[in-house]
Amino acid sequence: MKIRAVYPGTFDPVTNGHIDLIQRSAALFDEVIIAILKNTDKIPLFSLDERVDMLEVVVRDIPNVSVTTFDGLLVDFAERVEASVIVRGIRAISDYEYELQMALMNRRLSGKVETVFMMPAEAYSYLSSRLVKEISLLGGSVHGLVPEIVETRLQGKCRPPVKA
Amino acid sequence: MKIRAVYPGTFDPVTNGHIDLIQRSAALFDEVIIAILKNTDKIPLFSLDERVDMLEVVVRDIPNVSVTTFDGLLVDFAERVEASVIVRGIRAISDYEYELQMALMNRRLSGKVETVFMMPAEAYSYLSSRLVKEISLLGGSVHGLVPEIVETRLQGKCRPPVKA
Amino acid sequence: MKIRAVYPGTFDPVTNGHIDLIQRSAALFDEVIIAILKNTDKIPLFSLDERVDMLEVVVRDIPNVSVTTFDGLLVDFAERVEASVIVRGIRAISDYEYELQMALMNRRLSGKVETVFMMPAEAYSYLSSRLVKEISLLGGSVHGLVPEIVETRLQGKCRPPVKA
Amino acid sequence: MKIRAVYPGTFDPVTNGHIDLIQRSAALFDEVIIAILKNTDKIPLFSLDERVDMLEVVVRDIPNVSVTTFDGLLVDFAERVEASVIVRGIRAISDYEYELQMALMNRRLSGKVETVFMMPAEAYSYLSSRLVKEISLLGGSVHGLVPEIVETRLQGKCRPPVKA
Amino acid sequence: MKIRAVYPGTFDPVTNGHIDLIQRSAALFDEVIIAILKNTDKIPLFSLDERVDMLEVVVRDIPNVSVTTFDGLLVDFAERVEASVIVRGIRAISDYEYELQMALMNRRLSGKVETVFMMPAEAYSYLSSRLVKEISLLGGSVHGLVPEIVETRLQGKCRPPVKA
Amino acid sequence: MKIRAVYPGTFDPVTNGHIDLIQRSAALFDEVIIAILKNTDKIPLFSLDERVDMLEVVVRDIPNVSVTTFDGLLVDFAERVEASVIVRGIRAISDYEYELQMALMNRRLSGKVETVFMMPAEAYSYLSSRLVKEISLLGGSVHGLVPEIVETRLQGKCRPPVKA
Repeated sequence: MKIRAVYPGTFDPVTNGHIDLIQRSAALFDEVIIAILKNTDKIPLFSLDERVDMLEVVVRDIPNVSVTTFDGLLVDFAERVEASVIVRGIRAISDYEYELQMALMNRRLSGKVETVFMMPAEAYSYLSSRLVKEISLLGGSVHGLVPEIVETRLQGKCRPPVKA
Repeated sequence: MKIRAVYPGTFDPVTNGHIDLIQRSAALFDEVIIAILKNTDKIPLFSLDERVDMLEVVVRDIPNVSVTTFDGLLVDFAERVEASVIVRGIRAISDYEYELQMALMNRRLSGKVETVFMMPAEAYSYLSSRLVKEISLLGGSVHGLVPEIVETRLQGKCRPPVKA
Repeated sequence: MKIRAVYPGTFDPVTNGHIDLIQRSAALFDEVIIAILKNTDKIPLFSLDERVDMLEVVVRDIPNVSVTTFDGLLVDFAERVEASVIVRGIRAISDYEYELQMALMNRRLSGKVETVFMMPAEAYSYLSSRLVKEISLLGGSVHGLVPEIVETRLQGKCRPPVKA
Repeated sequence: MKIRAVYPGTFDPVTNGHIDLIQRSAALFDEVIIAILKNTDKIPLFSLDERVDMLEVVVRDIPNVSVTTFDGLLVDFAERVEASVIVRGIRAISDYEYELQMALMNRRLSGKVETVFMMPAEAYSYLSSRLVKEISLLGGSVHGLVPEIVETRLQGKCRPPVKA
Repeated sequence: MKIRAVYPGTFDPVTNGHIDLIQRSAALFDEVIIAILKNTDKIPLFSLDERVDMLEVVVRDIPNVSVTTFDGLLVDFAERVEASVIVRGIRAISDYEYELQMALMNRRLSGKVETVFMMPAEAYSYLSSRLVKEISLLGGSVHGLVPEIVETRLQGKCRPPVKA
Repeated sequence: MKIRAVYPGTFDPVTNGHIDLIQRSAALFDEVIIAILKNTDKIPLFSLDERVDMLEVVVRDIPNVSVTTFDGLLVDFAERVEASVIVRGIRAISDYEYELQMALMNRRLSGKVETVFMMPAEAYSYLSSRLVKEISLLGGSVHGLVPEIVETRLQGKCRPPVKA
């Protein structure tokens, strides 16, 4: 049995929590495709190219992991690349509710793809891309929360704290 | 005792989950008024007229159900039409929290209207208007999730998937 | 349309939260049958007769409410008394989860009975029979949490706090 | 990569929700070992032998699934059989909390085993062994909730409803 | 031991729930600094000056409470004013999840500040600034939900209900 | 202002999560009284004396912390020792619900005591006395989860894993 898994997300930017989950997935499935969502409503801090770039740097030493982008329905993408698993990380309850809803809907949209949930290390249980951006933009340090390349690039994006 | 119930919502668009709940309400209360909220912050996909129109088609065979629109406070509307019940569907925990908060506030604003919660069939537990729009706009099929008239009209609204 | 509702429970003992819900139910449905569950695993503090007795006293002034007992499946009882509604009070999230599970199972066991959820007044949101017993047995006052008849009878049940 | 998974539980008795999850696991992992917990505090309705027996019947047509029993720590068992995955089904929020706690603890006890969570079909979202036993003992039908062999054997276990 | 606490928020506008929490905090800590967040994404209904103004009126009789504003990271502000406690009110589960996440992140960002959670009176459990604004703008009364000065000033902000 | 806090619990046995919370409390309040509940329904693994003993060892270096036992209502005990704060640790959602209910009830029973909630370090978020006992009795190591004295004494309590 050869199982290909998709780990979808916006990764704006990738955090150490994402990387933890990528490593755990890579240990369980033959191939893991990190799939960055192209079309979202929100304007990202990092461009699609920047996000691909940073992810490729951080996973280059894990042989069975690759990075790509997609648009349209996730299950259509998964079927196209012949993946039978969607990997999702769960941290908090509110995550879980949304994830459950999406997983049930995805199962209805495609009978060929199964969603599995995995947990990041508890040290990352409160970590999110949104929080990383917030802290960074307010002048806080995100050292240890994101890989080095992201930490460096975030500094280039930082506006100084708003004066009132 | 003659009980009139209000089933409020945005219905942008009506889903099979809503219809399931309308049918269940119509079996318990003498009269059910579907009340579409006029003034919301978000720009709807379907105009108010379109939403009234679609709802009237899908409930035309249930004799004790009617469709109308309202603005202002829900409890003021309920008092105006002499309804003593507000019907709300609950699916997930996050729903429930918000619903509870609104129901307690509505009870404070009017002592004459009681909120009752009902569950849609479990097949619709993960269904929402938002998800229906998302899937449809990404080129997925919503067959079986919405009534036929909504399915047809959604096709007219669909933009083709974004090319990247 | 004439709707008969069942409000099931152990009522060991009835609290002011239960009474609040009974009053709200009696305002919405033509008839409300309070149905005390006979066979539970736990040994009750009050005998079945005592619980019937106390409930009959507290609801005697609400004309469309009656008190009875049942064993076996709740939906079988509801069908037998031709009730089409089961009323359940929800307070906290943990309640809600269990209630949802029971309601879905009851719907599967009988297509003729619908569960509706109602909220007690927020002053009773943290009130339960279990807590009332605990406080009373530890020598605390439950005045205002239960009807007078229950308060009096609890005093007869109270063992002095355990000496260590 | 050859991945062996453990699906642990009490299975007192196995339900259609369990079987749904076993089938989903068997499609993702090379080998799935159903591991019945021997030593629990609660007295089971079915003996360990009966539970093994019923499970073996219901999985006999899935080639990569086997049934066994274990005691002691789950992670010790998993290491012993060289499994790198523990599969757990999640339904409700309360499940999820407990499961998360156990998974984090198991990760701490053994770095070699990863817990993955999967969802049963939504039709089984409210199904549990406990509920099956309750309904059956109260004289209700569990047809469609458990495999045929369990349905038959439950009838032999049923006491008539308690007379009050 | 002399403990200084920070009670941060947007206070747009201050509600009776906030005031309840301020009073409870002032009874436990030597000094309580109400810290209004300057830079948020959302456009507030009341300007920063108006919010400071209203808060100063409502707390003027509590001797150990003061009002100020801040921007940047909350923990940086707390360290600057030598506060060792951040006080947060928790009402619902969804609140709690977010609060927990923020508290863990704040603990990581500064080891010198501890977050403590307190509960407002249950009468305010469903009260939020957002809800107050919504009700007021839809023409409902917020009497008893906010202090008098806020009630008066809200009337100046009210647009008449939208005509459709 | 001199604030005395009570940190109540069963402590059967004390874990590193408890100790983390005791240290955090001792940094915020002038005096912290660890109050071990005497009369519980469950038979403890460690006797009351053993629990007092172990707690006294682990807190002996924190000058403003003392250990005692109590029975009866917690708020009566708190009033008796002139404490104005009850400290409770919250980890998971299910904890939180129960804690909220108890805190509201305690506030009703005594207007003189306020409950504050604090978070243990995230490394202890999944740790409980129950889990420690379970792991230990199944032959697992609880090193790093409990203080050394508890680890040693647990070994004396361990029954060998049940043979089936």
